[in-house]
Amino acid sequence: MIRPALDSDWPAIWAILEPTIRAGETYALARDMDEAPARAYWLNPANDAFVLEEDGQVLGTYYLRANQAGGGGHVCNCGFMTGQAAQGKGVARAMGLHALDHARARGFRAMQFNFVVATNTRAVALWESLGFTSVGRLPDAFQHPTLGYVDALVMFQAL
Amino acid sequence: MIRPALDSDWPAIWAILEPTIRAGETYALARDMDEAPARAYWLNPANDAFVLEEDGQVLGTYYLRANQAGGGGHVCNCGFMTGQAAQGKGVARAMGLHALDHARARGFRAMQFNFVVATNTRAVALWESLGFTSVGRLPDAFQHPTLGYVDALVMFQAL
Repeated sequence: MIRPALDSDWPAIWAILEPTIRAGETYALARDMDEAPARAYWLNPANDAFVLEEDGQVLGTYYLRANQAGGGGHVCNCGFMTGQAAQGKGVARAMGLHALDHARARGFRAMQFNFVVATNTRAVALWESLGFTSVGRLPDAFQHPTLGYVDALVMFQAL
Repeated sequence: MIRPALDSDWPAIWAILEPTIRAGETYALARDMDEAPARAYWLNPANDAFVLEEDGQVLGTYYLRANQAGGGGHVCNCGFMTGQAAQGKGVARAMGLHALDHARARGFRAMQFNFVVATNTRAVALWESLGFTSVGRLPDAFQHPTLGYVDALVMFQAL
């Protein structure tokens, strides 16, 4: 079940976000980011935030928001995170499909991911399988903790 | 002379920003954006903001900041605006060159513009002449007030 995130979900969401942020391999966020700014970032009032819940456990979370203001407001942006114990179970795919539906329902005309780390091949393959294409490649734009400077992709899909 | 922007420069900066924001042809900002959020956006504490001054008059302004946090923090981003009366005098070019120098001095390894409206051909040509290349093209990502949906470019330069 995918449903809007509640304030009371925050501890479960943080339990998913924190290891990913600390690992620093997939998101351009400070690895030592504190809980309060992480909450302000993920559950920002401008975001529609969701959780994927199974048997009362939050396994994944995503947010959706406009990627730009003004004349760019018809393109949305999302961030997705899956709990480490729930990897490989289709959680991200289910959230991705939900996000595409939600974006269409809100009237967005496209979805854009600004910064998909190219070495995150599982994510790249997932988004491609859901219809996204890489419309940009940012050379050496991400400093990976073990791989050094790697590219990041801009992925896009018209809705 | 290009120098750091002072709080007391705000009225002159706003006189430059407001017509560009209201026109809505080149920046993905709400056309009815109020002065206070515009100030918070341009003179954000996370930005290095500058003005180009000639004979005591502010003719142009730009900001520079990290484009991403964490592993993306070595790539900077800028925004530039030139006063309407000062168009075509090389103000933007002078600020662009200053920004590249400033970015190198701060240790940034690259500069990225996330959203250059493709119909803003003067800006595209200027950035290309200063060494930027388009590494991405966002299809129909900007709703231009008279031209309808047009592409936006992601422009990039290693430093």
